[in-house]
Amino acid sequence: MALPFTHLLQLRVRYSETDQLGTFYNSRALEWFECGRTELLRAAGIFYKQMEEKGACLPLVEAHVQYLGRARYDDLLLIRSTLSPAGKASLRFDVTIARIADSQTLPVAAGYTIHAITDPAGKPTRAPAWLTEALHAATQEESPT
Amino acid sequence: MALPFTHLLQLRVRYSETDQLGTFYNSRALEWFECGRTELLRAAGIFYKQMEEKGACLPLVEAHVQYLGRARYDDLLLIRSTLSPAGKASLRFDVTIARIADSQTLPVAAGYTIHAITDPAGKPTRAPAWLTEALHAATQEESPT
Amino acid sequence: MALPFTHLLQLRVRYSETDQLGTFYNSRALEWFECGRTELLRAAGIFYKQMEEKGACLPLVEAHVQYLGRARYDDLLLIRSTLSPAGKASLRFDVTIARIADSQTLPVAAGYTIHAITDPAGKPTRAPAWLTEALHAATQEESPT
Amino acid sequence: MALPFTHLLQLRVRYSETDQLGTFYNSRALEWFECGRTELLRAAGIFYKQMEEKGACLPLVEAHVQYLGRARYDDLLLIRSTLSPAGKASLRFDVTIARIADSQTLPVAAGYTIHAITDPAGKPTRAPAWLTEALHAATQEESPT
Repeated sequence: MALPFTHLLQLRVRYSETDQLGTFYNSRALEWFECGRTELLRAAGIFYKQMEEKGACLPLVEAHVQYLGRARYDDLLLIRSTLSPAGKASLRFDVTIARIADSQTLPVAAGYTIHAITDPAGKPTRAPAWLTEALHAATQEESPT
Repeated sequence: MALPFTHLLQLRVRYSETDQLGTFYNSRALEWFECGRTELLRAAGIFYKQMEEKGACLPLVEAHVQYLGRARYDDLLLIRSTLSPAGKASLRFDVTIARIADSQTLPVAAGYTIHAITDPAGKPTRAPAWLTEALHAATQEESPT
Repeated sequence: MALPFTHLLQLRVRYSETDQLGTFYNSRALEWFECGRTELLRAAGIFYKQMEEKGACLPLVEAHVQYLGRARYDDLLLIRSTLSPAGKASLRFDVTIARIADSQTLPVAAGYTIHAITDPAGKPTRAPAWLTEALHAATQEESPT
Repeated sequence: MALPFTHLLQLRVRYSETDQLGTFYNSRALEWFECGRTELLRAAGIFYKQMEEKGACLPLVEAHVQYLGRARYDDLLLIRSTLSPAGKASLRFDVTIARIADSQTLPVAAGYTIHAITDPAGKPTRAPAWLTEALHAATQEESPT
């Protein structure tokens, strides 16, 4: 996986994700961000489930969301996630969520999450090999001379 | 704790628990049932958190909910939970949820959950002492001669 | 749509749907039941979103879940939903959820939901035409003489 | 209500709010922020439920969370919310969440939400009187000469 690495995911808004205003409840954006992360990693050949089983977790350190438009029950969403390094021992996912309307996509939310690399107890741990290699490659790309 | 054991809990409906119909989303009833269980056990001097840490879990085997009326954001709910034995190695919580209106309570939901007693891996395990004693006392009360 | 009508849906367990026991939190089963309903209706040419916009809602009257096995983060689930009539003015969805393992499917949950047909304010309302026709066809099939 | 206005709320972590790492799932922080907002407004004599019924909603425009420490099932949380103006027609809630341990409080999360003032359809609308007055008082306090 070369960083930055981008992935697209389509999801429908579930009824359980709506609220009484008729749109999605605000915290669902972070849950959709998570769906995007899982599928981005899978597309890169990395199974986050196995990564955690081997003792490397990616807990959130920071999350940011801008709410840009409405999405309602059963609307089709396009989640674009991009993974990039964020310092030595952390990762950043930038995410945009758009709603696929008849002939266009309309912005719904945008934001990012920053993740530490820890063991299951929350202690910082060594990055898994795939990550070290990806970060190394990313750094080299940035300063190729 | 003598069985059956009953406990009352008040909760307000959170905005995150509503859906686009303007009432609570149906699965929240099971989450409120869980709040009732936690507080019933605490009232009986049992901390479910510690119980799980010692290796005795109470995973659901069965759940049933009847939806009897509406509850909206910020409505005050009264959750009445009753713990009783359900066979040798399982427990049953019967729950009613009512909405506290001006001068009355209106039914919102009623149901029950049945729980096995297992270790964290899901294998059936010995009931903790508090439970054995409560079940024993309950049985004796039922046949006091 | 001829009743009973069955539909299959595949879903992955989200991280947000797990709990500290490492499996899915119990109320998620009802949320997955809802995903099954939405997609069953779509497969039959019925868009529940539009149905609600036209004023016919299907609020839950009753839900029942049996928990049969574990499902963990990222496990692939197979949700089988069957719609059948339940009395004159209500519908019943029977659902089974299985986990797709290497060479087999393992049971996770089974249950049903029963739904009234109401307007958005919760008052019983006329069934939409698709439903009346499906119920009529179902009744005729049952007594074909 | 004079701005900034601060409110404290205690909450326990629900089982449904945990995830397989054994702590709270990240999006729950935004749900706890919402509980803090509702109770802050109530403490100031403002019932957000009634405010929405009168047509003034406070949808999120932006949310930010820093995750500072762990909180587990049944941990007691202290949510400190502060309301302040954010431009002419929006509000900002700053929130810290701490865990109440034996003799101390430990940081769990900190962040903010920014809210627009809209009608139920999402169109910007006039601020309700309580808000105009509070904003006016806040502005005067800032420049008292």
